[in-house]
Amino acid sequence: MITAVEGVKCYGIKEGKNGLGIVVCKGKVAGVFTKNRFKAAPVIVTQEHVESGEIEGIIVNSGNANAFTGEEGLRNAKKMAELLAKKLNVPIHKIAVASTGVIGVQLDMGWIEGKFEEVFANLGTSREHALSFAKSIMTTDSFPKECVIRADGFTIAGVAKGAGMIAPNMATMLAFIFTDADFEPYELRNMLKKAVDRSFNVTVVDGDTSTNDMVLLIATGKNKVDRTLFEQKLTEICIDLAKMIAKDGEGATKFMEVRVKGAKNDDEAFKAAKAVASSVLVKTAVFGNDPNWGRIIAALGYSGIEVSEKLDLSVEGFKDGKSVGSVDLVKDGKSMMNEDKAREIMKKSDEIVFSIDLKVGDGSGYAFGCDLSYEYVRINSEYTT
Amino acid sequence: MITAVEGVKCYGIKEGKNGLGIVVCKGKVAGVFTKNRFKAAPVIVTQEHVESGEIEGIIVNSGNANAFTGEEGLRNAKKMAELLAKKLNVPIHKIAVASTGVIGVQLDMGWIEGKFEEVFANLGTSREHALSFAKSIMTTDSFPKECVIRADGFTIAGVAKGAGMIAPNMATMLAFIFTDADFEPYELRNMLKKAVDRSFNVTVVDGDTSTNDMVLLIATGKNKVDRTLFEQKLTEICIDLAKMIAKDGEGATKFMEVRVKGAKNDDEAFKAAKAVASSVLVKTAVFGNDPNWGRIIAALGYSGIEVSEKLDLSVEGFKDGKSVGSVDLVKDGKSMMNEDKAREIMKKSDEIVFSIDLKVGDGSGYAFGCDLSYEYVRINSEYTT
Repeated sequence: MITAVEGVKCYGIKEGKNGLGIVVCKGKVAGVFTKNRFKAAPVIVTQEHVESGEIEGIIVNSGNANAFTGEEGLRNAKKMAELLAKKLNVPIHKIAVASTGVIGVQLDMGWIEGKFEEVFANLGTSREHALSFAKSIMTTDSFPKECVIRADGFTIAGVAKGAGMIAPNMATMLAFIFTDADFEPYELRNMLKKAVDRSFNVTVVDGDTSTNDMVLLIATGKNKVDRTLFEQKLTEICIDLAKMIAKDGEGATKFMEVRVKGAKNDDEAFKAAKAVASSVLVKTAVFGNDPNWGRIIAALGYSGIEVSEKLDLSVEGFKDGKSVGSVDLVKDGKSMMNEDKAREIMKKSDEIVFSIDLKVGDGSGYAFGCDLSYEYVRINSEYTT
Repeated sequence: MITAVEGVKCYGIKEGKNGLGIVVCKGKVAGVFTKNRFKAAPVIVTQEHVESGEIEGIIVNSGNANAFTGEEGLRNAKKMAELLAKKLNVPIHKIAVASTGVIGVQLDMGWIEGKFEEVFANLGTSREHALSFAKSIMTTDSFPKECVIRADGFTIAGVAKGAGMIAPNMATMLAFIFTDADFEPYELRNMLKKAVDRSFNVTVVDGDTSTNDMVLLIATGKNKVDRTLFEQKLTEICIDLAKMIAKDGEGATKFMEVRVKGAKNDDEAFKAAKAVASSVLVKTAVFGNDPNWGRIIAALGYSGIEVSEKLDLSVEGFKDGKSVGSVDLVKDGKSMMNEDKAREIMKKSDEIVFSIDLKVGDGSGYAFGCDLSYEYVRINSEYTT
C-alpha cells in the first residue's frame, strides 16, 4: 500500500460507477503520459503541472475519463485540481489530476464537489486508507492493484488501475508510485521513462491506447540512496503493477508472458514479444488451451524483426505461481509434436509462459498479456448499455 | 465466376479440411505477396515463378499452409508446381502454387498426388467449375467469394478466400484475378499494387498478417483496353472481394465500413480508418450495438494522424443493402446525445458505416472490417483441437 511511504496520506470512495480519491504527499515528481493525440483534459493539465518538478497532492476520479470534452473539460480538470489546492493552501500547479472511465461525457462536477469534503476529511496513513484509494480509482478492474518494495535504505510503493484499453504505449492505465528516496525531477523522469518502457509499455490487453494514461513518480526525498539499486527496484515495482493489470485483463482467464532471447538486439526482442502478446489469434488460442504455435510464428514474422527458421519455442504453465510443467514445441525450427502434452499443461495453468530463442543475436526482452475470452467480448459489447 | 474470362479452365475438390484446386490459364502475370518475414514455401516459390512474367496454371491446396516447414516444405511446394507443369508440358516456373491452412505441419503429398489426376481430369469452363474451385480453397470461410465485372471491351473475374488472420498488410487471404485485357507484366504489377492497397490492405478481421497471402492477376491479352478504365474496374473487383472477406470475418455478425474525410491527406485518412476498423474495442462495441464513439475517438487519437477536436462523426446502418437510418453522434466535437437512436439503428443492421470528417484537410480514405463476437472467440480457441 502507498501509505508504506512516510508522508503519504490518502483516501477514496466509490459509489456505483463513480469514484473519487485523493493523495496528499509533498515531493519531487516526474510523469509519463499517453501518446494518444486526443489527450484527456486531466492529462493536459497534469502534464503542465508536473513540469514544475514538485507536487503536494493528487486528485483522481473514476467512471468518467473527462476526455474529448473540449474547453469545458479543461475547466473541470482545473476545478478538480483547485479543490485540493485550496484545501492544502498551495498553488494549483502543485496538484496532479487524473480521470478514467467513459470518453466524451462531461464530468458530474456536482458529485465530485459534493464528495470532496468527505474524502478530504478522511485522509489517513493506514493500510485501509491506501486500499480505499486503490479501490476508488478502479473501473472494470476486478481487484485493487498495490505493491510495496522495501530495499536497503528506502521504500517504493505503488498503486495502479487498468484492465481494458491496455496497449504497448500506455493505456487507460493509471499508476502512482511513491518513494522516500531523494532524487531531482530530471533523474526521476529518466528512471521512470526507462522503467515504464520495460513494464507498462510491454503490457497488452487489447492493443488500444487510451486517452488518459499516466504514471506519476513522487519522491519525498527523506533518504539518499544508490541510483542503480533504486532504478532496479523502480523497474521491479512497475513490472509487478503491470503484471497485475495483465492478470486483471477484462475477462482474462490466463496471464501470458512471452520471453524472447537470441534477437538481433534488445529492442527487437521486446518488439517480437509484444507482437506475440498482442496477437488476437494467440490470445484466443491461449484461452482455448490450444498450443497453436503457428500463430506465434506468424506474429514473429509480421513483427518486422530479423528472424531465422532455426528458432526454438517452448511453453511452460503455472498454477498459483507453481510450475505444472514445460515442453518444447519447436526445436531448431522443427515441430517437436508435443501439442498434446502442451495442451494438458495449458489446461492446468492460470499462467502461460512462451519462451522463444530466435538464434539471431544476443538481444532479449519480454511482454505481458492475457487471453481473450467470451467474457472479454461480453464486457466490451455491453460497456455503455 | 473466374470462367467468365475466356481461356480460364478450372476445378477443385474439398474432402474434410483438405482441398485441392487447379486453374489453367495462359497469360501475363503479376503478384502481390505477404510481408510476413516467415513466408510460406508456396509464397517463396510463386514469387520467383511470377518474375518470369507469364504463367499457364495455378495449383492450390487448402487445410495446410505449408508454412514454417523448412527445406521439405519448399520441396513439396515445388513438387505441387511440377505436377501441373508436367501435365501442361510447360517449365515449372510457368506454374503458381498457393496454400492456406495450419502452419508448421508438412503437406500430405500423398493426398495431393492422389487427388491431382481427378481434379485435372475434371477441368472445365462452366459456372459450376468456377464454383468448385472457389470452394476448394476455402478454410474457415462460410461462403465462396467470386466476382465478375464486365466493362467496355473487357472482363475481369476474381475468386478469393479468407475469413481469419486478415490484416492491413494482407492476410491468409488468397485472391486470383483473371482478365482478357492486354497489359505487360510491369503494368499489371503497378495497377495490382495500387488496387490491393486500396482494398485488401484496408481490410481487417483480426489484425494478424499471415505467412501465406497472395494476390495474382493474370491477363490473357485478348483485348486492348483503356488503362484508366481498367485500373478503376480492377480496384472495384478487389474492393468487392475484400468486402466479401470482411463480411465473412470469422464469427462476424456485422460488416463495418469506416469512411474518413477531411484528413491532412489520403494516406492519413486511410491510416485513421484502418485504426478504427482494427480496434478490438470498436469491434466488440459494434457486436453489442453499442455506439461507444469514445472508442472511435481513442483509435483516431492513437493512429498517429493529425486530428482536431472539431470533428464530425455519424453512423449509418444497412440491412440487406438498404439503409435503415443514420444519425450524427458528434458534431463539431460535441456529443449529439443520439446514442439511443444510434443503438436502435445498429440493432436493425447487418452493415454499419461510420463516417468521420476530421476537418483538418482534404484527404479521404476508408477501411473495411467486421465486429468481434463470441463466435470469433469460439472458432479461434478451438481451431486445432
